[in-house]
Amino acid sequence: MPLSPKSPAFDPLSVVTHTGNSYPAEFSGASAGRLKRRLGDHGGLSNFGINHVTLPPGCASALRHWHSLQDEFVMVLSGELTLVTDAGEQVLGPGMCAAFPAGRPDGHALVNRSGVEATYIEVGDRTDPDEVDYPDVDMQVKWVDGDQRFVRRSDGTPYD
Amino acid sequence: MPLSPKSPAFDPLSVVTHTGNSYPAEFSGASAGRLKRRLGDHGGLSNFGINHVTLPPGCASALRHWHSLQDEFVMVLSGELTLVTDAGEQVLGPGMCAAFPAGRPDGHALVNRSGVEATYIEVGDRTDPDEVDYPDVDMQVKWVDGDQRFVRRSDGTPYD
Repeated sequence: MPLSPKSPAFDPLSVVTHTGNSYPAEFSGASAGRLKRRLGDHGGLSNFGINHVTLPPGCASALRHWHSLQDEFVMVLSGELTLVTDAGEQVLGPGMCAAFPAGRPDGHALVNRSGVEATYIEVGDRTDPDEVDYPDVDMQVKWVDGDQRFVRRSDGTPYD
Repeated sequence: MPLSPKSPAFDPLSVVTHTGNSYPAEFSGASAGRLKRRLGDHGGLSNFGINHVTLPPGCASALRHWHSLQDEFVMVLSGELTLVTDAGEQVLGPGMCAAFPAGRPDGHALVNRSGVEATYIEVGDRTDPDEVDYPDVDMQVKWVDGDQRFVRRSDGTPYD
């Protein structure tokens, strides 16, 4: 194997990392340690996103959520991650997958409840106008004046 | 890890396999041993396909090709695969990735030139009317009367 793959190939761990998330401050803590590498963007893809994600112990992939129009798929690469859905919790090890079809109202999140770092890849398309529901909190993503906004499910008011 | 993940999680190796390909007979040999598991379809996804592919020694992923409208992405899971593009050949080991943006006229294929089985995942969206070019042979996929057909680049006539 060459030490440095040549374009269009690349080592995913060579891709720039992004931390943090865009949630309102009161919900941002659980995923604050998430490290994301945008592999599809790096490779010039636009029809779907594919990310390499690293979750340190205690960190969650996201608030539990589901998309109205966008499909999602995950595969665990290393470590153990707890998948949380309406069916409960289950621990997924390397190679295990999960699929979340658009419009199925079952929120999902991956949580690293182990003592060691875990990694996975996630794939999602970019069908719009996608909306998102977060069943465990009073929040949704809705389109407001042409932009996606975090709003309260209870009364539709936007978060700051 | 549970022995049997529960929906929406699953073990990719539990998914039904498909062999063979849809190429005209004169081009079907190089990928005849390819074993494909349609993970996205299995999980109820429709906006993109994600497959787990096993290539025995000597087997190719496909004829070298590129898509007009659909993005593609691959990640090697096990073994070593030779990526062939206009830039030449390079061997990719586990974890290495490659991205093939829609409309970039650089054909790609993965070939297992090693002595042991190799596996990878491939992702592709389903944007239509997608067309495909196979630069090493006299073939393209074109839309004819509302259907995708293998035709000769040289004179547009369909393969049987």
